[in-house]
Amino acid sequence: MAVHLPKGARDHLPAAMHRRLQVFRTVREVFSRYGFEPLETPAFERIETLMGKYGDEGEKLIYRILKRGAGGERGEVDLALRYDLTVPLARVIAMHPELPLPFKRWQMQPVWRADRPQKGRFREFYQCDVDTIGATSMAADAECLAVVHDSLVALGFTDFTVRLNHRQLLRAMVEHLGVADREGSVLVAVDKLDKIGQDGVSRELAERGIPQPAIDGLWGLLAHQGAEALVHLRQALGEPAHVALDQLAEVLAHAEALGVDPARILLDPTLARGLDYYTGPVFETVVTEPKIGSIGGGGRYDGLIGMFGKNPVPAVGVSLGVERILVVMEELGMLPEVQTLTQVLVTVLDDDLLVESQRAATAFRRAGVPTQVSLKGGKLGKQFKQAATLGVPWVVVLGQQEHADGVVKLKNLGTGQQQTLPLAEAVALVAGG
Amino acid sequence: MAVHLPKGARDHLPAAMHRRLQVFRTVREVFSRYGFEPLETPAFERIETLMGKYGDEGEKLIYRILKRGAGGERGEVDLALRYDLTVPLARVIAMHPELPLPFKRWQMQPVWRADRPQKGRFREFYQCDVDTIGATSMAADAECLAVVHDSLVALGFTDFTVRLNHRQLLRAMVEHLGVADREGSVLVAVDKLDKIGQDGVSRELAERGIPQPAIDGLWGLLAHQGAEALVHLRQALGEPAHVALDQLAEVLAHAEALGVDPARILLDPTLARGLDYYTGPVFETVVTEPKIGSIGGGGRYDGLIGMFGKNPVPAVGVSLGVERILVVMEELGMLPEVQTLTQVLVTVLDDDLLVESQRAATAFRRAGVPTQVSLKGGKLGKQFKQAATLGVPWVVVLGQQEHADGVVKLKNLGTGQQQTLPLAEAVALVAGG
Repeated sequence: MAVHLPKGARDHLPAAMHRRLQVFRTVREVFSRYGFEPLETPAFERIETLMGKYGDEGEKLIYRILKRGAGGERGEVDLALRYDLTVPLARVIAMHPELPLPFKRWQMQPVWRADRPQKGRFREFYQCDVDTIGATSMAADAECLAVVHDSLVALGFTDFTVRLNHRQLLRAMVEHLGVADREGSVLVAVDKLDKIGQDGVSRELAERGIPQPAIDGLWGLLAHQGAEALVHLRQALGEPAHVALDQLAEVLAHAEALGVDPARILLDPTLARGLDYYTGPVFETVVTEPKIGSIGGGGRYDGLIGMFGKNPVPAVGVSLGVERILVVMEELGMLPEVQTLTQVLVTVLDDDLLVESQRAATAFRRAGVPTQVSLKGGKLGKQFKQAATLGVPWVVVLGQQEHADGVVKLKNLGTGQQQTLPLAEAVALVAGG
Repeated sequence: MAVHLPKGARDHLPAAMHRRLQVFRTVREVFSRYGFEPLETPAFERIETLMGKYGDEGEKLIYRILKRGAGGERGEVDLALRYDLTVPLARVIAMHPELPLPFKRWQMQPVWRADRPQKGRFREFYQCDVDTIGATSMAADAECLAVVHDSLVALGFTDFTVRLNHRQLLRAMVEHLGVADREGSVLVAVDKLDKIGQDGVSRELAERGIPQPAIDGLWGLLAHQGAEALVHLRQALGEPAHVALDQLAEVLAHAEALGVDPARILLDPTLARGLDYYTGPVFETVVTEPKIGSIGGGGRYDGLIGMFGKNPVPAVGVSLGVERILVVMEELGMLPEVQTLTQVLVTVLDDDLLVESQRAATAFRRAGVPTQVSLKGGKLGKQFKQAATLGVPWVVVLGQQEHADGVVKLKNLGTGQQQTLPLAEAVALVAGG
């Protein structure tokens, strides 16, 4: 019988899981340090909760679940798999008016999208979102930026930049250029700058009917980055851009106070971030080397979280690209290859001594040392080989002679060093090291 | 717009999540100590992987996923949500012959069953399985038992019993009683002993056509527990029961060597554990007070894991009832009510001082202290109230005067004590306590 995984799905075997759990633990610690609280929502939602939220293209990618029983036999659907973590969050906020605002939550769960599978893109993948709901202060935006920054630092990244922009700057630009009715087209085209370059974007803008003078004007507005951009755009755009520029200055000041190295933040007016639901500051974290693009981004989206209620609810958040981070860290050799957490394999030379080997293992475990007793038995050489295959650094040998003498042999497979010593000393040596 | 959760589904809000994460972390540590490795499999499997594995009743409870595109519109199904963690494990073993055996893995993921929702029973719930694949030694069975034992001890349980039996003992009994062809009926009936009592089981056995002498004989065989049962059944059943009884004696000896208090294990020949796929020792952990039944059980099932391959693969495992454990621990008050991990709320008295408050928060965070800056602002009293609502134990006040003096006010909301001191000292005090 041939068995297969569903297309685009993965098993995470132990070596991969050790990497994943390490990364998840590290970022969770950062989230907690900033006071974000954990949330989990069900894998499926009622179909009406998800429909109409992701556009036509998105909706095609949603997994629909048949009703159980007769309805399902008629092809009726009542549930769908989670497509992202934002719509479920909006549902939670609507259903729990008792939650004190601002509500700061992190959520790290898989989502499912029937996307065309390709290298590094899967149909089941973890999203990792951090959001503050119910705060209008730019301090909340800066915290989201700082959380991504601190997460990447905690994971060991040194070479990354946080690109920062403001959704209302683009608005002011298109108004200034007299193409305010084409804001969506400009957003979509500029968003492709990294991929197709300035010429490509100009061509696309022209195709979308933007007049040439406006295109030229746009590149003039986008010509500066960093502090210069703040000055340049304040002059060029005047009053309509002031709120956005003031908010960006606030975010920069707050981020610095939160410990973000200012050299790592780049004010970049070309940053569009495709999603049109952003309403304020937007940002994106880019690893400089290797050039693998964004591994985390977000922004303020004051119009979305209130979708299930009567009133708009201010919100700002960031999505950490944990799956991409895992790929990058592996490529960069930033994650040690951990096959197992087991530190000690206790060999079993003799069925009569199995119980003694188990007692020895118990002593190691009680000292907090992850320990296996060889369940294979067989020749000693084979058991040593088992330890090497598993990636276990220490082997304990407990034969009749050692048992009689009240000692164990302890061998370090890395150094090859072996010593004979009382069990308690062996435990102390391994637990201490 | 009214929003609802799907029937039988739950959101886990922060207070619940803190409990869940604590329990999950505790048991994961125990699993690692015994050398079990983490595994995750996709939420959905190909429909043909799951069909025919759970019986007619089980199959009705499986969530089926429509094909995307045209096939789905015709009602075609290609995927189904995970129903347990065992069939996916069998698939992984079949697909990964390179995995060194014995393969010891833990897996803690949700499963989905369209069961009738009722108190404490949900349609999405976590399963938590620990299995050793490819080992015939009873040491592996004893390890599974010890893992449950150690998990419960680590979680703080003191009043529990591990009931232990052997699937082949029941086999020997029905043969001895001349009703070997009715083994399934006897298994199903005896499994209800806890619920319907001896009279109820006798009635059901009679209804199922078991002759009265055999029923009487059965109760005679089941009359003893513990060490007496071993002696009694050896005499009564003779040679056909010897392998099972020897294996049980082995499991008991190994479990003791692994540090399990022998007083906590009860040999109980009435333990049936409904599932007919068990082939060897079976066990079940029962919390004595309150009487809430099994919170973890398992056994040897040598016939199942090989289902996708050519050869049978020996296997033994245990499923820890984490959802039930969470309910019980909450009822018993064993889990402290944790609303938040945040230790410090830094108030913001003045927009001009926001940046100073953020700097103070950064100092706490860098010392590993989870800290929030009030994003609400407003009157100081309101911010103190916010801290109390969130359950944050410490509040830092940083006004113009404190800023000018280079100090902060630090108040402990539990004791009401307040002191004014340099930031670094405040950090040291909280981080140290």
